Amino acid sequence: VTAHFQQRGDVAVLVPAAGSGVRLGPGAPKALRPLGGVPLLLHAVRRLAAASSVAVIVVAAPPADVAAVRDLLAPATAGLPLIVVPGGAHRQASVAAALAAVPAGPQIVLVHDAARALTPPDLVDSVAAAVRAGADAVIPVLPVVDTIKSVDADETVLATVDRSTLRAVQTPQGFRRDVLAAAHADAVDPHTDDAGLVEKLGVPVLCVPGSERALKITRPFDLVIAEHLLATEPATRTLPS
Amino acid sequence: VTAHFQQRGDVAVLVPAAGSGVRLGPGAPKALRPLGGVPLLLHAVRRLAAASSVAVIVVAAPPADVAAVRDLLAPATAGLPLIVVPGGAHRQASVAAALAAVPAGPQIVLVHDAARALTPPDLVDSVAAAVRAGADAVIPVLPVVDTIKSVDADETVLATVDRSTLRAVQTPQGFRRDVLAAAHADAVDPHTDDAGLVEKLGVPVLCVPGSERALKITRPFDLVIAEHLLATEPATRTLPS
Repeated sequence: VTAHFQQRGDVAVLVPAAGSGVRLGPGAPKALRPLGGVPLLLHAVRRLAAASSVAVIVVAAPPADVAAVRDLLAPATAGLPLIVVPGGAHRQASVAAALAAVPAGPQIVLVHDAARALTPPDLVDSVAAAVRAGADAVIPVLPVVDTIKSVDADETVLATVDRSTLRAVQTPQGFRRDVLAAAHADAVDPHTDDAGLVEKLGVPVLCVPGSERALKITRPFDLVIAEHLLATEPATRTLPS
Repeated sequence: VTAHFQQRGDVAVLVPAAGSGVRLGPGAPKALRPLGGVPLLLHAVRRLAAASSVAVIVVAAPPADVAAVRDLLAPATAGLPLIVVPGGAHRQASVAAALAAVPAGPQIVLVHDAARALTPPDLVDSVAAAVRAGADAVIPVLPVVDTIKSVDADETVLATVDRSTLRAVQTPQGFRRDVLAAAHADAVDPHTDDAGLVEKLGVPVLCVPGSERALKITRPFDLVIAEHLLATEPATRTLPS
């Protein structure tokens, strides 16, 4: 495993997947909701494992499901080391738990939402490449295409916002390992956005182009879009089955 | 026609559809791109005509296509008056041309994007109802669900934006007729958002809940989503064929 690890890449990817979530309906952990008959988390891990920069994947699972999640994912990592740890009470705690479990070696750490289940391996590699090229923190983004207004408490428009300077943020977000560790050590209140923690340190965060295929699958409407994306996924790279 | 007009509703809907557009690929006017074999504009007009508040529809077409657009749409308006005028060089000019062609009577005017081809008739009626209830200007909106960052010219993050006060704007946008006329009379530079013109007058603009089905179909990816929405459209109301 160690030899493979050294050959494959220089990136650890953390996947906080301990949330129960209600937006796709109550019941199973949200990361395990099926898309095309396959749990979202399994889709996500397959695509992470297909990214050539990735050396190790660390998943934070619901504490009761650690063994089951390991059994589910182990065949999907194409021989990459997979570590499954119990997640925390909220996303940030799960990211911190996963970060603490990263073995010595990788100096680039990505944090990825399991709900962005169809994120292309190429996007994972491009975020990692931007960190490798010298950025302390990197986020994939899309332009904001809608007209955006700011509103007051009465839902009355305050202003039309200049959308040309706005970006919609996706994952994986990439960090120098020491920067992410410092951001989590410094964090006070729960945060859902790791780049936001890093911003609080005063560390610059660089935007790189994201992908429509990296959409976050949270609402039933998203699942419908995802089913289509799954059916039309480029087959240019073989994903581990 | 006049009798029908008086029975049906109190709303004129303007549809600027003169743009050539390139985002769905070059070629035909963008409002005439097919979705499920039917031009977007025809989808849009069918649904406008199915809204019980609508009394008259005014379409601004490419000047060379006025007669063809009239022939295309006339069978789709369920007996509602349809007026087709030559559009202008940009969206705002087309809206102004359509507004000038609204007959005496309706005191509520909606402006709708042809590219929001699958907008439910109920949303049209709810925007109109909010104007009828006293608002000078009404826009349908969705919450912003993505994490949003503002960036500088180097694509470096300046700040995480508080998305709870942001709204993504759709159409139809609804106005008191005199307010929309004043806004267009006052307009100096081309604007793609009629509510933005009204805001410049200092008139309050009210937000009401929009619909995921009212998405703007501009990119190939949107067309895919729209194909699915079309296949799953609620059949609770009979649309004119």
